[in-house]
Amino acid sequence: MGKIKVGVAGYGVIGQRLADGVARQGDMELVGVADLAPTLSIRALKEQGMPYDLYLVDGADKSQFDACGIPVSGTFEELIDKVDIMLDSSPGGVGAKNKELYVKHNTKAIFQGGEKNSVADVFFHGYANYEKGVGQNYLKLTSCNTTGLIRSVDCLDRAYGIEKVAITIIRRVADPGDYHRGLTNALQMDKAPSHQAVDLMTIMPHIEATGILVHTPVTHGHIITVVATGKQKITKQMALDAFLTHDRIRVVTIDEGFKGNASFFRYARDLGNRRGDMYEIGLWADSIVESGDDIMYAINIPQESVTIPETMDGIRAACNMETDRLKAVAETNKYLGLGKWK
Amino acid sequence: MGKIKVGVAGYGVIGQRLADGVARQGDMELVGVADLAPTLSIRALKEQGMPYDLYLVDGADKSQFDACGIPVSGTFEELIDKVDIMLDSSPGGVGAKNKELYVKHNTKAIFQGGEKNSVADVFFHGYANYEKGVGQNYLKLTSCNTTGLIRSVDCLDRAYGIEKVAITIIRRVADPGDYHRGLTNALQMDKAPSHQAVDLMTIMPHIEATGILVHTPVTHGHIITVVATGKQKITKQMALDAFLTHDRIRVVTIDEGFKGNASFFRYARDLGNRRGDMYEIGLWADSIVESGDDIMYAINIPQESVTIPETMDGIRAACNMETDRLKAVAETNKYLGLGKWK
Amino acid sequence: MGKIKVGVAGYGVIGQRLADGVARQGDMELVGVADLAPTLSIRALKEQGMPYDLYLVDGADKSQFDACGIPVSGTFEELIDKVDIMLDSSPGGVGAKNKELYVKHNTKAIFQGGEKNSVADVFFHGYANYEKGVGQNYLKLTSCNTTGLIRSVDCLDRAYGIEKVAITIIRRVADPGDYHRGLTNALQMDKAPSHQAVDLMTIMPHIEATGILVHTPVTHGHIITVVATGKQKITKQMALDAFLTHDRIRVVTIDEGFKGNASFFRYARDLGNRRGDMYEIGLWADSIVESGDDIMYAINIPQESVTIPETMDGIRAACNMETDRLKAVAETNKYLGLGKWK
Amino acid sequence: MGKIKVGVAGYGVIGQRLADGVARQGDMELVGVADLAPTLSIRALKEQGMPYDLYLVDGADKSQFDACGIPVSGTFEELIDKVDIMLDSSPGGVGAKNKELYVKHNTKAIFQGGEKNSVADVFFHGYANYEKGVGQNYLKLTSCNTTGLIRSVDCLDRAYGIEKVAITIIRRVADPGDYHRGLTNALQMDKAPSHQAVDLMTIMPHIEATGILVHTPVTHGHIITVVATGKQKITKQMALDAFLTHDRIRVVTIDEGFKGNASFFRYARDLGNRRGDMYEIGLWADSIVESGDDIMYAINIPQESVTIPETMDGIRAACNMETDRLKAVAETNKYLGLGKWK
Repeated sequence: MGKIKVGVAGYGVIGQRLADGVARQGDMELVGVADLAPTLSIRALKEQGMPYDLYLVDGADKSQFDACGIPVSGTFEELIDKVDIMLDSSPGGVGAKNKELYVKHNTKAIFQGGEKNSVADVFFHGYANYEKGVGQNYLKLTSCNTTGLIRSVDCLDRAYGIEKVAITIIRRVADPGDYHRGLTNALQMDKAPSHQAVDLMTIMPHIEATGILVHTPVTHGHIITVVATGKQKITKQMALDAFLTHDRIRVVTIDEGFKGNASFFRYARDLGNRRGDMYEIGLWADSIVESGDDIMYAINIPQESVTIPETMDGIRAACNMETDRLKAVAETNKYLGLGKWK
Repeated sequence: MGKIKVGVAGYGVIGQRLADGVARQGDMELVGVADLAPTLSIRALKEQGMPYDLYLVDGADKSQFDACGIPVSGTFEELIDKVDIMLDSSPGGVGAKNKELYVKHNTKAIFQGGEKNSVADVFFHGYANYEKGVGQNYLKLTSCNTTGLIRSVDCLDRAYGIEKVAITIIRRVADPGDYHRGLTNALQMDKAPSHQAVDLMTIMPHIEATGILVHTPVTHGHIITVVATGKQKITKQMALDAFLTHDRIRVVTIDEGFKGNASFFRYARDLGNRRGDMYEIGLWADSIVESGDDIMYAINIPQESVTIPETMDGIRAACNMETDRLKAVAETNKYLGLGKWK
Repeated sequence: MGKIKVGVAGYGVIGQRLADGVARQGDMELVGVADLAPTLSIRALKEQGMPYDLYLVDGADKSQFDACGIPVSGTFEELIDKVDIMLDSSPGGVGAKNKELYVKHNTKAIFQGGEKNSVADVFFHGYANYEKGVGQNYLKLTSCNTTGLIRSVDCLDRAYGIEKVAITIIRRVADPGDYHRGLTNALQMDKAPSHQAVDLMTIMPHIEATGILVHTPVTHGHIITVVATGKQKITKQMALDAFLTHDRIRVVTIDEGFKGNASFFRYARDLGNRRGDMYEIGLWADSIVESGDDIMYAINIPQESVTIPETMDGIRAACNMETDRLKAVAETNKYLGLGKWK
Repeated sequence: MGKIKVGVAGYGVIGQRLADGVARQGDMELVGVADLAPTLSIRALKEQGMPYDLYLVDGADKSQFDACGIPVSGTFEELIDKVDIMLDSSPGGVGAKNKELYVKHNTKAIFQGGEKNSVADVFFHGYANYEKGVGQNYLKLTSCNTTGLIRSVDCLDRAYGIEKVAITIIRRVADPGDYHRGLTNALQMDKAPSHQAVDLMTIMPHIEATGILVHTPVTHGHIITVVATGKQKITKQMALDAFLTHDRIRVVTIDEGFKGNASFFRYARDLGNRRGDMYEIGLWADSIVESGDDIMYAINIPQESVTIPETMDGIRAACNMETDRLKAVAETNKYLGLGKWK
């Protein structure tokens, strides 16, 4: 099998990182990215000398790109036609429309969390239900919070069995650089239960989940607290032992300097990670407490980049590159350098 | 029995509100307040024409007050000598030092949450353990989060029996107008378990509690999510029924416009409440969800003013004004206008 | 002349404060307020026992108010018909539509800063161009920043003559309690020149003005720096002397505790001012510096309440209650208690 | 001449970037960095495989580094002894103490803006007074705001002559990841004139400068507005023409997407710049306005990285690598890739 050819629709916060992620996979080839307007991200692509080819979606005004001196490689449909699979990170709702083109061109696709579940054959998470995605045409990834949350719950579930979780999502409200949304000096409630709890139950139907979500005026990473009820009592040490084995969970402590969500962002920049991104969730060892027979802990979700590894897993599943769950995630982890800090 | 004479030590965020609270109790008399320096709060007292008499603590430089034209009524010890009970809202640690003076003058005192428990005979909450405070000389109030949290847990506990709670505290990091502390674009973790969970167990030793606290960069009110395990299954309706009876819990919905902590602040200002304060905790009816046999809900804690009613209860207990718990809190509620919105 | 009858359209952030302001004027009578939906502000009105009568604008669903138990006194047109003058603080653009009703009922009106200048006969500021508003039917108030800015520039201009100003507006982006707008960890530029500079030139055509506006993620008060070029050199002491005479300018220092915009909000709450409001602008004595022959200084604009005094001035002008500028503003100041802190 | 050997003292926010900057200069060699404790930045160095050798300053506990598996290459004095010049980015005040060691080892040094001017022979800016630093032993760099500000003022000054500037600094209050300082929902005043204006006059004594500084609760970049008085009238076009020629000034517009300070941070991340850094100041073309004969404009200062180029210039000056100002800055610009976006 030659390299799997991949395209990206929507070169925004997520799309850029999907493109970077694909470019790092030794068994995949990034054919190009598609977008609508000469945004800052597209201008940055140009300033870097177009490391990724750019295609224009329907409705784009090519003269705007010409005016900026941004070379265009073709139309969205031409990109779709060249690839085995599209990663769709268009704004919410647009993916459903794009799907018609994917079907027309007989191209597989993976949609990000903003689309409705009905857009896809399978609601997918690399660690929790990889097998369901194998050979499927259309996958939908879990959203950033759900992706990270499920990593930790699946980790405990496979080790000890989990029956029930109650989560509190302390959500960042915007990404660094966002001006189209924001919150100032306010915490904002969502109606309960949060969609992340509902989504967890869709992916892991044997677990009962509920939760409350509160928006906070910060940009660097969500924090989720989880109260998990095991099939057996899970002690703090048992939880820690399980988390420490996971290549996409970075176990840290406050004393080391990981004081909150912004510490992870700082650390990723200090590591020299491209864009200051981190693929792992953070898990505070000193947040783990026993609540009777339940176990409680807190995780950090780097919202911009956390879904990239599971999307790479999704390509492996949908394109039949690997049928074994653990081999597939290990392949993704190898190319992204995950777990090597341990 | 004539009116109980009350003094306040420390005329800051809490002390001002304690003074206002006492001034509203028909069976108490505010003799005066004590402070160290001509802060903005003291300057505001002067601009209002000194509605409360001012006494100076040891170390105060009277010439600074003279320079501002602020009249001084005497020394801290003179104030202590005039009153039946002192409410101590000095900065953390100072209260313990002040206690020596209270003992010397044979004056009762109630300390705020910043002091160590050992400063007092009883760690006190008006609703949860009123009886323990009756006739005691030195009480310590629970902190703002613990005060509000216990209101809700005690409410469920008395109605249905509670065995265990796991809390997530989404903490405001500063008060409006604070410049001596703050957090910018970051969530900050505390080591678990949070002291509020530990404090709850001290007040309500029959309940097992743990929790995680996260600081957020906002100034208007903490939000706490609670996962409570009842002795019996507590349904959403059962929880709501109990909360609706409580005069210090304001049950609201997002649809009414209570979108988050800042809505409560806005509403209190719109009500014309002095300083824009609210004595009640908020409880979102649309946050209540069942988690298996557990019940989960979210409350809002107006940090500046929430402990005032329970401190008034404490005066009633310590000064033997009332031995019956429900009669005592009802008296406080009457004078503060609590529950009348229902 | 009996009391002037006043109505308020739009009972939001500004409308509530206009109603409060009118209620404090001994020579005016607040007939009622009009709004569209049972917002938190309207619910707060009800919880207070309806101190102001409520009228419903066209499009309001009365059944929503009935469901909340909120009494309604009539229709918007009925209110318009009962009053001499309407204060229109409807959302931007609605005022222009409302004007048709005001014209139909032959009722005067004052519009807030969100409307276009063309809605009114005169663009009005109580101190700077009072005379132009006398006897006019339709006035438009300057916006909050412009109102406060002009107070300070007019003050210097009348004392020493001003030729030119260059301003930097550091703008709060939302009001406390706002969830419909916000900014998170970002400063945002507006295209220069800012409209406040342009508006200043409309009110004070003999002065050349320009400026740059930057939005900041805070809720308590704008800060404006002003570089003013006098007809003569204005020293720091000369500027200070002029500012100290003004009843709507509160001269403060950092050393007193006025560390920034949030200190003013704190101070107004400590004063017990209704809603924690302040009618005065703040002016930092220790911000005044000489720049060659120019003078530079910084002011604080309490955005929610700063336009109330000038609107009261506007009523006096439009309704011919007073033709003399200084007598008119003095009357407003007397009823609002302005200047008495000095 | 072989490569100039450089060491860095203090591997924090600035120190890391100094090390990266030196590593990119073809004619310099980074010998190592020195620090006190295994901070997150040092841990990140280890996780990257120690691209820079680590030396321990006096007072460091080597066992802490051993416990983390962080290899240590020697002592601070050993590092000082190996290099031609030290870049000192220790916390404020420590640099003055370190200087004794530099003198003892006869090693040149460049101090960052936190130290007092008296620590150095020359207060230095690469563009404005390069010649003064040539061959000197101890230079002190201007602080981040002053460095960026002077770039723009020097640019206009050399083109047209500048007599006077009045600046308003809208200052970010913390860096991303900072937990030791912060501000929440408040703007904070400094006493005027700001030190940046004073520093500008030290570097450019022929210009009169004053200014006001306001702290804002954001982390990505300061914004400064400048009102500059030229020796001749400078039109908007003249200013723009000058700025466009400068390799360390990035002229942008709001319409392109540069909506504020956070846009620059986003753009630098999108460019794939290490740590998401930007060496250039931003200058909004659509902020430039004429104020009579004065010119007004706004710039963005990326506080973490803006001083790196001028520090590289400083090495060139102090170590006699180049005596010509324009050749020196061009060399730095070449290695850092500055100006190539044009």
